[in-house]
Amino acid sequence: MSLNGFLKSLKSRRDRDWTYDSGRVFSSMCSKPLKAAVRAYTMFLETNLLDAKIFPSTKNLEEEVIREIGSLFSGPESGGYITSGGTEGNIVALWVARKLMKRKFVVAPMSAHYSIDKACDLQQIKLLRVDLDSNYCASIESIQENVNKDTIAIVATAGTTALGLVDPIDEIAEIAEDFKCFLHVDASFGGFILPFVESPQAWNFSVDQVSSITADPHKMGLAPIPSGSVLFREKAWLKTIEIEVPYLSGTSSTLLGTRSGASAAAVWAAFNSLSHEGYRKIMRRCMRLTQKLANGIKRIDGLDPVVKPELNIVAFKSDFMNLHDLSETLETKGWLTSLNKQPESIRLVVMPHHRPKHITSFLSDLRECSEGLA
Amino acid sequence: MSLNGFLKSLKSRRDRDWTYDSGRVFSSMCSKPLKAAVRAYTMFLETNLLDAKIFPSTKNLEEEVIREIGSLFSGPESGGYITSGGTEGNIVALWVARKLMKRKFVVAPMSAHYSIDKACDLQQIKLLRVDLDSNYCASIESIQENVNKDTIAIVATAGTTALGLVDPIDEIAEIAEDFKCFLHVDASFGGFILPFVESPQAWNFSVDQVSSITADPHKMGLAPIPSGSVLFREKAWLKTIEIEVPYLSGTSSTLLGTRSGASAAAVWAAFNSLSHEGYRKIMRRCMRLTQKLANGIKRIDGLDPVVKPELNIVAFKSDFMNLHDLSETLETKGWLTSLNKQPESIRLVVMPHHRPKHITSFLSDLRECSEGLA
Repeated sequence: MSLNGFLKSLKSRRDRDWTYDSGRVFSSMCSKPLKAAVRAYTMFLETNLLDAKIFPSTKNLEEEVIREIGSLFSGPESGGYITSGGTEGNIVALWVARKLMKRKFVVAPMSAHYSIDKACDLQQIKLLRVDLDSNYCASIESIQENVNKDTIAIVATAGTTALGLVDPIDEIAEIAEDFKCFLHVDASFGGFILPFVESPQAWNFSVDQVSSITADPHKMGLAPIPSGSVLFREKAWLKTIEIEVPYLSGTSSTLLGTRSGASAAAVWAAFNSLSHEGYRKIMRRCMRLTQKLANGIKRIDGLDPVVKPELNIVAFKSDFMNLHDLSETLETKGWLTSLNKQPESIRLVVMPHHRPKHITSFLSDLRECSEGLA
Repeated sequence: MSLNGFLKSLKSRRDRDWTYDSGRVFSSMCSKPLKAAVRAYTMFLETNLLDAKIFPSTKNLEEEVIREIGSLFSGPESGGYITSGGTEGNIVALWVARKLMKRKFVVAPMSAHYSIDKACDLQQIKLLRVDLDSNYCASIESIQENVNKDTIAIVATAGTTALGLVDPIDEIAEIAEDFKCFLHVDASFGGFILPFVESPQAWNFSVDQVSSITADPHKMGLAPIPSGSVLFREKAWLKTIEIEVPYLSGTSSTLLGTRSGASAAAVWAAFNSLSHEGYRKIMRRCMRLTQKLANGIKRIDGLDPVVKPELNIVAFKSDFMNLHDLSETLETKGWLTSLNKQPESIRLVVMPHHRPKHITSFLSDLRECSEGLA
């Protein structure tokens, strides 16, 4: 088969997937990457960020974007690197924390992302999952009861996967201060929306005890996968995982070693082409649509929002409808939603690919489906 | 600045990097990705392999290429996944090995890649680095002395980073058999050249005791970074690291979770457009050029090849020249080489981006530089 034949065959497979552009995907924390980011990614596709000797431009771009993210997160002196995503960020944060603290276990609320379990299992660290409060945020009481002088780190989330909530990070910080332990904030989802919404609660390096932050440009930052980031309050902490790369006559402080320079270029292009003002506009539109969606759901008999949305996620439950059936019925009507287990609910992530017409049309189908199942 | 302004600025940074096309990069185990792979990568840039509900095509492509790789490596029943590269593959292999074996330490020859140290440090596994034989391959005697009933895994390399050598994997397999331990083969570099050269030594699943193989399509497979792979003799072993992804109502057995579907599509496109015959031609050309380069070096006074090249890497030493100075002088003449520490030597990786004229021209400059330093 010719090159064109293969590409045609690939294209026809690709065409059978769902698309973000359709506005019908409510199940994803990723979206269609920005045009500038895609163009930049493609331009750097043959580069390797590990090998700054061959590709010095990629290292410079990475340093620039890490400085920009640090400033955006109130940590102009922080240091870090462009990761493949939130899981890598969480693994690296806990790896550094473990090496620095030389203690025994990690404390994380039940709402923390499952990659925290993975990071701990991988490292043979004991993980204590602690309770949520009645509003599904980290329970300060429960953290307080479980943290002690053997705690490596407390993990808090800024934008939980299930409900988009921000844990009470300033209160958690006081506990971290008392026990001098690491405080890692998983802002994989929230990191690139919180700086652009009005008066968010404290969540970043402005809170003195926050030690590290994971935030994904490939989620709300609108860069292509793989584009994550992990930042540490003290750049020097990365030395704890530094390793010599013999054949490059240099060192590396990353999990993966070889990484595409395209990620750094794409993040750089997204940040510089949109600028803060551009992100602010997009995030405010997402928040307006989220409000519209939440209000519409409240007006449907039998459906109840789980919490008042803090970020661009709406989750709703029902006392007398099978949510699994409802989700499947919505899918037959061409809408993708996801099911939360804790609390049992349907989750809708309102992303930059959504327009007002998608919300209106979804609400109309949701009403119809729920009437059919009631 | 306009979108075009930003892209122009990025392009001018990129233009200051070295390029593979120039034929002047001898320091890299990566090369210019194939056109088909680049086109496929770009086509799938917005997809997420973790989310097969939205992007079923990516999961199918991954399954197809993993089957193809399995067959190519004499393990048609093996299972695995597309990773970000060799480091992830090595981490995952040792993670699975640790969970399966429930033992204490890993044994690896001094020549194994530094990511093995990283994988062990991360997992708090003790690593025993053992000696090489006089030919810089794993010493069977040294492995034999160090393996015991507490050994989780022995790591062998098919295509070492420094010299491109293949460890005596069939002999190591006998030790693994005696102690019923895991045998992981890091074929990050060699995995996509060994199947295409004439009568390579045994290195893959055809050796009964080989448990897992890491092999990188983004090295000799000519796909873009990030495109690695890890394969296990028994697909079921991946269950040991399986984790529930609550919001997807499914499970995942990977290190990173979210991964770009573009990697799977690019590998698929590379394999299908080149086919085995295409790879065979490219790899044979690399081996011919390697021979030409090694022969040329032998003829230069004061330079000695460290070993007879087994794959497409030539390393040479000198009894009376400072290799660091030689490498720097070569760089001022526009050639990138790397320095090996063990054994001290200059390393040249002959990649698909090299043509006969590059070898000739490099040899001429090398002769001139070494005469200048002698």
